[in-house]
Amino acid sequence: MTHRPEDQRPTLEDVARRSGVSRSTVSRVINGSPRVSPAVSRRVRQAVAELGYVPNQAARKLVTRRNDAVAVVVTEPQNRLFIDPFFDLHLRGIRQELARHGAQSVLLLIEEPDDYARVGNFLGGSHVDGALLFSLRADDPLPQTVARMGLPTVLGGRPLHRAGEGDGGYAYVDADNRGGAAEAVRHLVSLGRTRIATITGPLDQAAAVDRLDGYRDVLPGRARQVVAEGDFTLRGGAAAMAVLLERSPDLDAVFVASDLMAQGALRVLRERGRKVPDDVALVGFDDLRPLAEAMDPPLSTVHQDIEGMGRLMARLLFERPADGADRSRSSLVIPTRLVLRQSA
Amino acid sequence: MTHRPEDQRPTLEDVARRSGVSRSTVSRVINGSPRVSPAVSRRVRQAVAELGYVPNQAARKLVTRRNDAVAVVVTEPQNRLFIDPFFDLHLRGIRQELARHGAQSVLLLIEEPDDYARVGNFLGGSHVDGALLFSLRADDPLPQTVARMGLPTVLGGRPLHRAGEGDGGYAYVDADNRGGAAEAVRHLVSLGRTRIATITGPLDQAAAVDRLDGYRDVLPGRARQVVAEGDFTLRGGAAAMAVLLERSPDLDAVFVASDLMAQGALRVLRERGRKVPDDVALVGFDDLRPLAEAMDPPLSTVHQDIEGMGRLMARLLFERPADGADRSRSSLVIPTRLVLRQSA
Repeated sequence: MTHRPEDQRPTLEDVARRSGVSRSTVSRVINGSPRVSPAVSRRVRQAVAELGYVPNQAARKLVTRRNDAVAVVVTEPQNRLFIDPFFDLHLRGIRQELARHGAQSVLLLIEEPDDYARVGNFLGGSHVDGALLFSLRADDPLPQTVARMGLPTVLGGRPLHRAGEGDGGYAYVDADNRGGAAEAVRHLVSLGRTRIATITGPLDQAAAVDRLDGYRDVLPGRARQVVAEGDFTLRGGAAAMAVLLERSPDLDAVFVASDLMAQGALRVLRERGRKVPDDVALVGFDDLRPLAEAMDPPLSTVHQDIEGMGRLMARLLFERPADGADRSRSSLVIPTRLVLRQSA
Repeated sequence: MTHRPEDQRPTLEDVARRSGVSRSTVSRVINGSPRVSPAVSRRVRQAVAELGYVPNQAARKLVTRRNDAVAVVVTEPQNRLFIDPFFDLHLRGIRQELARHGAQSVLLLIEEPDDYARVGNFLGGSHVDGALLFSLRADDPLPQTVARMGLPTVLGGRPLHRAGEGDGGYAYVDADNRGGAAEAVRHLVSLGRTRIATITGPLDQAAAVDRLDGYRDVLPGRARQVVAEGDFTLRGGAAAMAVLLERSPDLDAVFVASDLMAQGALRVLRERGRKVPDDVALVGFDDLRPLAEAMDPPLSTVHQDIEGMGRLMARLLFERPADGADRSRSSLVIPTRLVLRQSA
C-alpha cells in the first residue's frame, strides 16, 4: 500500500492554529502530559483527528510510550463472543473504564492457532500501552508473551497453569467462582435434594475448574458426584443435560455452571417431561439479565458483577506498576451472591 | 505505566537463533518482504511472538509502513453489534480475508461523540496499514479524517452525503439495496396486493435510504406509499409495525428493510390477529440464517451476501492504490436476489 508523501501531511502548527493553543500545548497533549486541562486536551485531540495529523511516533514513543490505546484480547470463536451476553457486559465495563482514562479499546480476537503469532506481533509493535486478556485456556502462551514484552497486563479470570504452578504472578480480576458454586450447591442440599448433578464449563478454563471444585467442596466423595462437561454454550448445556439424564435418571437437582447452559438444560428437561423445580431443581451461574429472569420458570443463579469486573480490569491496569514483585499483590477476587428465583 | 529497560529486551539475534534462520531473513520477514516463503515467515513470526521481540518500529515504519494490521471501525452501539447477526457475518468475512493477507484485524467501536477523537487519534498513529469503516451515518466525519491521513480505506456501504455530493470518491462495497428492494415490492404487486407499506431502516444510513428508494421506484406517487421509519432492530420493527397498522388498517403487505425488523413486525401482526401471509404478506431484507428460515411462517426476503461483502472490502484494500483519481473506480455493488419462502 502506498501513502501520501510526508510534505502533504498536516503539521504541529496546523493543529495549534486549528485548536487555538500554542505549539507547546499541542506537544504536551500529544505526549500525554498531565499539565493540560481535559477541555483543552479534548480540543487538541479533536483538531488532531480532524486534520489527520500524525505525530512523530518514533520520538514520542521512546520518551513516553503513550499510545492512549489498550489491547483487549479475547480467545473465543467470534460467534461465541457475539452470542454470549457475558462478553457484551464484560466488554462494556472494560470500554467505559478505558475511555475514562482516555484510552482507546483495541479489540483483538484469537480464534485459531495462527492468530497467536499475528496478535503477538501486533502487541509487540508498540501500538498499545497495555493489554487485557480474557477467556484464557490452560497454559495459554499469551500471558507469558506479553510479560516478556514488558507490556502491562491484567487477566480476566485467574490463569490456569499445570498443577502446583500457582497463578504465575499475573495480575487478574476474577469472581469467587468456587465460593459461589459451593453456595449454590449448599442451597440445593438445604432443599432436601439428594441426587445433585453438575454441568461444568470447559475444564481447560479456570472458571469451569473452580466452579466444579465448589460443587465438590459441598459433596465430597466420588459416589455423590454426577458430573458432565459442557462448554458454556446453550447447545453444550443441552447435550450435557441429556448425558446426565442417561447416566443418572434419578437426579433431582442440577447446578449448571452458566446461565446459557442452564437455558439449554431446561429445554432438555422439559422435552423429557421433568418439571422444574418439582422434579429437578436448577441453579445457574452468571445472573444474566434479562435471560435468567425471563426463563420459565425464572432461574435461580449465582450473581457475578460481570460489567464491574470489566471496569476493575481496566482500573487495575492504570493503578499499578507494570513490573516487579508486587504484580501478584494486585489481583482481585470479587464476591458472588446467590439470587433465588423459581427454578430452585 | 513503566516498561522494562531496553537492554533486557530480546534482540534480532535471539529471534534468528530461535527460528533457525539468518538475521537478514528475520529482517526481511519483519519488513514484509515478499522474498520469504510463508512457512519461514510463519516460523519467524512465531519466534517474534514467543520471545516478545519488539522490532525497531521507527526505522521500520518510515521505510515500509507495514504494521500487518488493519483497523475495522464500527459506528454502532456495542449491544447492537452483539445482537445483530449481520455484524457477526460481516466481521467474519473481513477477518478471514485480512488473515489471508497476514493482517491482524483491529476492531474499534464508535458509540459516542467522544469516541471519534480517540479513534481518529489511534488511526493517525501509524498503528495500522488501512481502515475498513462500516455502519456510517450521514455526513460521518470519519471517512474524511482517514482520507486526510492518507490511510487506505474502504467503506462498507456507500457513503451518504448531502444531496448532490455523490459518493465523495471513496472506495466502497455495497449491496444493490435499491434494486433488491424494488424486486421485493414488485413481487408483492404481482401477488395482487394493493396496499403495500414499508418499514425503513434509520434514514441517516445509505442502506435505509436506498431500500426506501427501491420501494418508491415501484410505487410512485405519494398516495400509494405508506412509510414508517424503523432502526434495524427487532424492537424498532415492532414499533413501526404498530404505527403502520394504526395509520393504514387496510394494509395487505409490508416490505421490511431488515430481517430483524421483520421478526418484530411479525410479532405485532400476530398479536393483532393478522394472519401472515393470508391477511398481510411480509418480505424482509438480508436473508439471515437460520433466523429467516426459522420464523413462523418462514420469511421471504432479499438475500445479500453479507460475509462475501466483508471479504470483498478487505480484498479491495489490498488490491488498489490508496491515493488518486481511480479510488471511485474501485467500488463494488453486489447483486441481491429475492428468496421466496412462505411469508409472501
